[in-house]
Amino acid sequence: MANESWISDYSPSSDFSLANIPFGIISSPDNHTPRPAIAIGDFALDLETWLTSTTEENVAEVFQGVDVGHLKLALSQATLNAFAALGRPVHRSVRKGLQDLLCQDTPFPQLLKDNEGVRTKALKRLSEVTMHLPMWISDYTDFYAGYHHAWAVGVMFRGPENALQPNYMHLPVGYHGRASSIVVDGTPIRRPVGQILLDPKAEPKQPVTGPTRKLDIELEVGCFISKPNEMGESVDVKRAEEYIFGYVLLNDWSARDIQAWEYVPLGPFNGKNFGTTISAWVVLADALEPFRVKSDIENKIELQGYLQEEGEKVVFDIKLEVDLTTSDGSTTTIGRTSSKYLMWSFPQMIAHHTLGGCPMRTGDLLGSGTISGPGGVEERGSLLEMTENGKKEVLLAGMNARTFLKDGDSVTLRGFCADNGSGLRVGFGRCSGTIYSGVHR
Amino acid sequence: MANESWISDYSPSSDFSLANIPFGIISSPDNHTPRPAIAIGDFALDLETWLTSTTEENVAEVFQGVDVGHLKLALSQATLNAFAALGRPVHRSVRKGLQDLLCQDTPFPQLLKDNEGVRTKALKRLSEVTMHLPMWISDYTDFYAGYHHAWAVGVMFRGPENALQPNYMHLPVGYHGRASSIVVDGTPIRRPVGQILLDPKAEPKQPVTGPTRKLDIELEVGCFISKPNEMGESVDVKRAEEYIFGYVLLNDWSARDIQAWEYVPLGPFNGKNFGTTISAWVVLADALEPFRVKSDIENKIELQGYLQEEGEKVVFDIKLEVDLTTSDGSTTTIGRTSSKYLMWSFPQMIAHHTLGGCPMRTGDLLGSGTISGPGGVEERGSLLEMTENGKKEVLLAGMNARTFLKDGDSVTLRGFCADNGSGLRVGFGRCSGTIYSGVHR
Repeated sequence: MANESWISDYSPSSDFSLANIPFGIISSPDNHTPRPAIAIGDFALDLETWLTSTTEENVAEVFQGVDVGHLKLALSQATLNAFAALGRPVHRSVRKGLQDLLCQDTPFPQLLKDNEGVRTKALKRLSEVTMHLPMWISDYTDFYAGYHHAWAVGVMFRGPENALQPNYMHLPVGYHGRASSIVVDGTPIRRPVGQILLDPKAEPKQPVTGPTRKLDIELEVGCFISKPNEMGESVDVKRAEEYIFGYVLLNDWSARDIQAWEYVPLGPFNGKNFGTTISAWVVLADALEPFRVKSDIENKIELQGYLQEEGEKVVFDIKLEVDLTTSDGSTTTIGRTSSKYLMWSFPQMIAHHTLGGCPMRTGDLLGSGTISGPGGVEERGSLLEMTENGKKEVLLAGMNARTFLKDGDSVTLRGFCADNGSGLRVGFGRCSGTIYSGVHR
Repeated sequence: MANESWISDYSPSSDFSLANIPFGIISSPDNHTPRPAIAIGDFALDLETWLTSTTEENVAEVFQGVDVGHLKLALSQATLNAFAALGRPVHRSVRKGLQDLLCQDTPFPQLLKDNEGVRTKALKRLSEVTMHLPMWISDYTDFYAGYHHAWAVGVMFRGPENALQPNYMHLPVGYHGRASSIVVDGTPIRRPVGQILLDPKAEPKQPVTGPTRKLDIELEVGCFISKPNEMGESVDVKRAEEYIFGYVLLNDWSARDIQAWEYVPLGPFNGKNFGTTISAWVVLADALEPFRVKSDIENKIELQGYLQEEGEKVVFDIKLEVDLTTSDGSTTTIGRTSSKYLMWSFPQMIAHHTLGGCPMRTGDLLGSGTISGPGGVEERGSLLEMTENGKKEVLLAGMNARTFLKDGDSVTLRGFCADNGSGLRVGFGRCSGTIYSGVHR
């Protein structure tokens, strides 16, 4: 496949290159109905509009082997769930067809490139569209698969001898998250009020109710499920890739003081359920395939059979960054890491999640858990780690410093895969949110 | 209101008395489309059929102050969510209208009682209808508000000095459950496979993968949310009743060995997400109002302001029972308790859940947590407590005995409120499931 597209302002080094073709839900000033689109360069291609402007014969020619009626119905919904449910072979064919339509030497110039009427209707500048949550999310599960994060947090609270819990190397630890508070990139996040121990060592323990003083981020990758499994049936780890629709960046905002007081014995609750931000564009599973690397996290124990993947352990190498922008407008990149530091793959998480027969549904979201690197504070995916739970400050541009987030702070996660040889780049766009208190201005 | 209905086979001591009027979703051999109904005695009144057989003027006369168009639309859906979203004043008026329609001296005899055509179409024997999940459940939260259960389990694992965690009396501890595996009364439950430590004391800890050996029940009451709150907005405890649609019985099936190995530090996961059974009929919040009693669980600490209810602490007195039926057909009632032993009310749970701004949606389900009484093993809501984690057997009819559940065992929860003075009875019907392994026969 050529790297070049005929789209104006297109650059192969854009997050939304021809090698990517991520799917999202847009609305626009001329059409307020949320509808599916893909991103290409600085543009969104409105799929519903393009499909209704193109004959069924032509659509069938572009998307080989795809049932055009099913596809048109799926791509006329306000979420991507129906499209996801069509399954990975359809996603593959549709992505390939869109690459053919958008590449410099497209075999279908009359369907978009050289068709000014359709082009004007169906192509929108990204700066002019509003992004919506891409999927209706029924259940959200957050794992704890970032090995260096689990280790660092364990050392902080229990010392290096007991840093990892005994189960950590045997199974992908996870918990059920809150689906209702998942929001799309750009949604403001209200600083939560909660019960907090101002002096955790005082006895008897006496909480107060107030705004969190330890508002944190968690840098994660999210995975959307396409294919459901029946209740009572588990998914074989070797076939779990078929159940994956695609990936997003995910910021699991966390109130560390609320969490610390509430979480024993049943896990995080109000410390996490006030907001989780995901990036707006779903990068299809196939778009990440070229970016697998051998994992450098060794698991010396013998895995249970249901977690054993074929061949050597390979993971995606998504380069991840965290930017913090303070209210004076200055931005600092406070963390750089990679998804290759995940202890468990998403197929392993799916196999574990369904082992006892738990049904997954189209649109379910799995979070990886916070991803940190093995290096210093600059490779951490949470302020908890960067500041040793508030003991040290992170220095920022503009003479600013932080332990945890202040009102007016914006956090933006970014992520991309790049192949320096081919120049291929597949990126996720932004995953950002700004903190406010009280009533939103 | 008179206690008597003209329905044949009607008894005021039925779970589904005129004082109740619970809502559910039925289908029938002559109409496979799931649709709303209410239960009365041994019958279901098919509301969609009745509404389409009755003029809008007559419907408006029965349901005073209700928008008939909205109501007909809401009651033509395959779940009760749209009806729940109409709000508590509408539920109140509709329940009152249905009581008028069904009582012995109904003012509307021509609309059902004396109208053989409509009666034949709209009234179905309960034995002839199939029940479906009453609500589309987006998020499920399970609390831990059963005081005597939390105490007994705490004593078992940590001794009486540390039985309750420091946070227990200060806030309603809860965790996010799994919505996708909630099923309606009667659905078979597959014994889950999971990672288990056969010898929890051996070092290093080495799990095996196999079927749970400690399959348990949890006797709970579930509460459905009607009215959503916006993300970032909390619900005042004094107004939280307005957010409640109604109640069901809930069995939070639990695999104690899977749970014990997985749950530190993020809480229960595969030990709980393989199945949760609820009763089929939603008892409206108003139907329980006559059955409030003063709570006898005293909280000596001063509650945070957001948890302080008006007046003295009142709780519902739902009498709860657990029946275990073995595969030889013999049934033993193994537990008897009451919802009055809940440490926290559902309004307190709602106020806490939304304190940090977590949005609740119509159809969200809150579980109370396991309810046990202060007495002996016969008042316990889980086998974990009855058998001291498998150390003692529960003796059953038919020369059977159990520590945890065997394949072929059926567990049925029952619950009812009764006022001995008036003879009023409001019951929940069954909440049951049968355990199987391997492929369902």
